Amino acid sequence: MPQDGQDVTYPGGLTRLYVEAPLAQGAQLAIGEDQSHFLANVLRAKAGDRVRLFNGRDGEWSASVTTVGKRTVTLTLDAQTRPQTGVPDLWLLLAPIKKTPLDYIVQKATELGVARIAPVITRRTIVERVNGDRMRANAIEAAEQSGRLTVPEIAEPVDLSKVFTNWNTERRLVFCDEAGDARPAVAALANMPRGPWAILTGPEGGFDPAEREMIRRLSFAVPVTLGPRIMRADTAALAAITIWQSTLGDWS
Amino acid sequence: MPQDGQDVTYPGGLTRLYVEAPLAQGAQLAIGEDQSHFLANVLRAKAGDRVRLFNGRDGEWSASVTTVGKRTVTLTLDAQTRPQTGVPDLWLLLAPIKKTPLDYIVQKATELGVARIAPVITRRTIVERVNGDRMRANAIEAAEQSGRLTVPEIAEPVDLSKVFTNWNTERRLVFCDEAGDARPAVAALANMPRGPWAILTGPEGGFDPAEREMIRRLSFAVPVTLGPRIMRADTAALAAITIWQSTLGDWS
Repeated sequence: MPQDGQDVTYPGGLTRLYVEAPLAQGAQLAIGEDQSHFLANVLRAKAGDRVRLFNGRDGEWSASVTTVGKRTVTLTLDAQTRPQTGVPDLWLLLAPIKKTPLDYIVQKATELGVARIAPVITRRTIVERVNGDRMRANAIEAAEQSGRLTVPEIAEPVDLSKVFTNWNTERRLVFCDEAGDARPAVAALANMPRGPWAILTGPEGGFDPAEREMIRRLSFAVPVTLGPRIMRADTAALAAITIWQSTLGDWS
Repeated sequence: MPQDGQDVTYPGGLTRLYVEAPLAQGAQLAIGEDQSHFLANVLRAKAGDRVRLFNGRDGEWSASVTTVGKRTVTLTLDAQTRPQTGVPDLWLLLAPIKKTPLDYIVQKATELGVARIAPVITRRTIVERVNGDRMRANAIEAAEQSGRLTVPEIAEPVDLSKVFTNWNTERRLVFCDEAGDARPAVAALANMPRGPWAILTGPEGGFDPAEREMIRRLSFAVPVTLGPRIMRADTAALAAITIWQSTLGDWS
């Protein structure tokens, strides 16, 4: 292990990179062009410098820069720094919103610790196209910076009318319901069992009355309210994840 | 009251405008250039159309467009639609961050219901200039869209070393402390009294050890943790506000 290398850091801390390759003692690996560019040209890493790697399966590893090429940086794995850990089994089902708030919600949901993000198309969904690659890139970047050892899965968009077909009814659903008689979220979740859950938040215009009826009839749905003010869709999603993590997730 | 006018709406719902003038039955008022432009040219409002107004003191009013001029739209107040209400007495003390996340945190904190946002300069604060006018504009826009009847006060930046001089010790402080032995936020706040509170979140690099020591010695400080992952400063602030509102604020 090189003794004169430095940890490659940026204002957020030690640089962590998500890779797909298996991670094991002494393994050498050539990282992709974007990550190589980032390490070599943005962070100006030199041979011997150290970064951390994770792949969602093999824990977190310390690795040293071996060679810095024009397009490829190669790394040698030194030692595992943390065993593999996951996040609670929480899915976020969200009606897609405009590009900037969607970037933001993917980043924040990753930091807050969701396992899967699934775009759901509702009748009032205005945005029709969902850029899955962009969502994945945002999720990877946020996972790298938040110390996670997994990247949330980004699901293909599904129509709301179909998402609960073949649903495992043991997976309970937090339904963020602006209208009606739903209970405050902390009270509604306080005595619920842990285990698989999902959170469903609506589009900017809310759910259609027929959609709302359909959701409230689901045996596994728990309608909740998030206070007396009107929140944007992305704010509601973040607030619901925070409350779930604080009552049933790994913040408690 | 005109019978043929329409409610001026946008995707978020009925248009609500914050104004400074007193609001009373039959009052006429000429709104400012930016709001006039927004109503006349963006939303294409016509004489007789209706909007809602609030000023933070006199409740919410329905008003009809009387004249649409090139630079000024005049309105006539029809009726009060909601009595004045406030938000809980919660302050957000935050170390300023880059422009885009700061815009975002001001908007979200307004939606989540804080009464006052106070920039606090710490030793590791990288951003030195804080654009108070921009923060105020973001707060007004978010208040208009979230149904609030008040706009959060934007305080002048203060140095962390001075912010607790002359502090009313009845105002308790949620201290978001990444390091150390702090308790999970919901558990730490569950049996605390309601009343005046503030939330303090750090800069991207965290608090300096001496700052952390100083804060933890404050008799009114309640250190809390927000789960096992590393959050950006803006995410931590939103999560802390959500948990406070759910346990001690107006969401419970």
